[in-house]
Amino acid sequence: MSQSSSNPKRDIVLISTGGTIEKTYDELAGVLSNQVSVLDVMLGSLRLDGVALRRLVLMNKDSLEMTAEDHELIATVALREAETCDGIIIVHGTDRLAETGHCIHGAEPSPAVPIVLTGAMKPYVMRTSDAMQNLTEAMLAVQLAAPGVYVAMHNKLLPFPGVRKDRDGGTFVRT
Amino acid sequence: MSQSSSNPKRDIVLISTGGTIEKTYDELAGVLSNQVSVLDVMLGSLRLDGVALRRLVLMNKDSLEMTAEDHELIATVALREAETCDGIIIVHGTDRLAETGHCIHGAEPSPAVPIVLTGAMKPYVMRTSDAMQNLTEAMLAVQLAAPGVYVAMHNKLLPFPGVRKDRDGGTFVRT
Amino acid sequence: MSQSSSNPKRDIVLISTGGTIEKTYDELAGVLSNQVSVLDVMLGSLRLDGVALRRLVLMNKDSLEMTAEDHELIATVALREAETCDGIIIVHGTDRLAETGHCIHGAEPSPAVPIVLTGAMKPYVMRTSDAMQNLTEAMLAVQLAAPGVYVAMHNKLLPFPGVRKDRDGGTFVRT
Amino acid sequence: MSQSSSNPKRDIVLISTGGTIEKTYDELAGVLSNQVSVLDVMLGSLRLDGVALRRLVLMNKDSLEMTAEDHELIATVALREAETCDGIIIVHGTDRLAETGHCIHGAEPSPAVPIVLTGAMKPYVMRTSDAMQNLTEAMLAVQLAAPGVYVAMHNKLLPFPGVRKDRDGGTFVRT
Repeated sequence: MSQSSSNPKRDIVLISTGGTIEKTYDELAGVLSNQVSVLDVMLGSLRLDGVALRRLVLMNKDSLEMTAEDHELIATVALREAETCDGIIIVHGTDRLAETGHCIHGAEPSPAVPIVLTGAMKPYVMRTSDAMQNLTEAMLAVQLAAPGVYVAMHNKLLPFPGVRKDRDGGTFVRT
Repeated sequence: MSQSSSNPKRDIVLISTGGTIEKTYDELAGVLSNQVSVLDVMLGSLRLDGVALRRLVLMNKDSLEMTAEDHELIATVALREAETCDGIIIVHGTDRLAETGHCIHGAEPSPAVPIVLTGAMKPYVMRTSDAMQNLTEAMLAVQLAAPGVYVAMHNKLLPFPGVRKDRDGGTFVRT
Repeated sequence: MSQSSSNPKRDIVLISTGGTIEKTYDELAGVLSNQVSVLDVMLGSLRLDGVALRRLVLMNKDSLEMTAEDHELIATVALREAETCDGIIIVHGTDRLAETGHCIHGAEPSPAVPIVLTGAMKPYVMRTSDAMQNLTEAMLAVQLAAPGVYVAMHNKLLPFPGVRKDRDGGTFVRT
Repeated sequence: MSQSSSNPKRDIVLISTGGTIEKTYDELAGVLSNQVSVLDVMLGSLRLDGVALRRLVLMNKDSLEMTAEDHELIATVALREAETCDGIIIVHGTDRLAETGHCIHGAEPSPAVPIVLTGAMKPYVMRTSDAMQNLTEAMLAVQLAAPGVYVAMHNKLLPFPGVRKDRDGGTFVRT
């Protein structure tokens, strides 16, 4: 058996919606201009041998500004893509991440593939950001988890429904 | 139900054996002296909400220098600890990581919990090291995988037996 | 002649007053607690073979909130210390840095030693901060410059009077 | 008076010759391919408002492998360029840096402009490298120093002749 067939990559769709993880700082704009987004830099620093990524840039919003229509749009796109790939990752602001997770789960309690939301409490541009950890976790969780809707963050994978942001702890927990 | 009971941490044992991931550079010694190992620095930069770690420092060897007795010692300790925890992570040099993996699997094809080996192609002290990615993956995989023996690295979780280092690609693949 | 006498260190007083360079981020607080300030981390990452540092922590203010009394206090302390050391470095917010520089120069146009102000446009905690560059420059300039009052930043050393912040360029220029 | 005339940039020639500062690691090759050298990355991360740089890539040698001809070639090129610019920076391996410095000083004890050698004890690709500090210092020293030949490193600017590498201390000192 050839190596490529014995080590196939999963087809993963990464939907980005904005949020803290991608936030920059005024002066950084110049540095990261010429079409290189923060998420590109992050992905470029990982060795992603397990997945073949397809990128969708759906919106670029602080999740506090997301409307009901935004949540539904993300759910619709994620569930549509779920029909034709092996897994979905959604990069999302943490403030309304749980709303989007519940919206997807409400629309389809049994999606065909794992749909993993992630984000960060501190932007990637901070030296001590949790962004790389969370993205790394989402990238592995989407390969290991059973079909369903999840948030991957801070060394945990939590299934929807029943997940909320713990604002004091700065993380997600089971309700 | 209280939050602590609904968000329990898994008891994970992290066995370190040395290898590239922990390699430093002569001049770094001074900087990271006073009892702070490279692995401590790495663990300190992650948010590990899913696991309660217990650390064992079994040896500190370049895996090229490991003997048959070393592989067996690691296997014995890992399988002994596996009786009383929820998962094992073994930080290991990549050159002989597969030997240790097969040694564990040979001694016990059905361990009680997931036993996840990991390491790095480039030491943590390099700016572009894969060490944080691999440790992050191992820390999540040990919670998600079924009982068994694995290597977590480069966005993949591969089960033993049947894993080898691909020296040209600088990673692990299925044989 | 002994090495220590042939390579003497200059006695430098580093006065910190706050400003962007030392700004942290809410969640960082925990990481950098236990008495380690951002400036300590920065100084600890440099090899300072040319200077013997004495630290004064005078205040911890965003310079936009500095009063006339604050500028005068900094000037008084700097000029007092200048009598008994080989040079002064003042870490300062950039918004009112020029006011403090002019205040020192107004009080004493011919100080006994170099007095070098510095700061940063982006906090050290940002990956792409200019903080390390500017601190490094101040640490060398205080050894090389003639007695006087200066700002060291962005690969330039500018003497007072006649320096202003260029808000569009995000740096200091000659007026 | 226009701002550009009141804040002129000095014309500086940066001659790179190789050495530890530019050393990479096998696996890094891919990451930093497409014509972006380590020195480009370093320069790109500094705000160089004081200098207009012209780059010469003279050789790419571990200085332990430099021959007498190499030292003379560097001296010849540096002294030729010194006739038509405001200062010279030479990035050099530390093991033979002093030889090149003495070679330049021997050929021309009174060069027209400052000629500042620098390098690093640990490659830039190490997280705790001294490369950025030393390059930052050289970039400022070349503007502040009197004409002459120097090494800028570790918070010191030392004039030739009479400089040697202190191998135990991992730095340069006066002989």
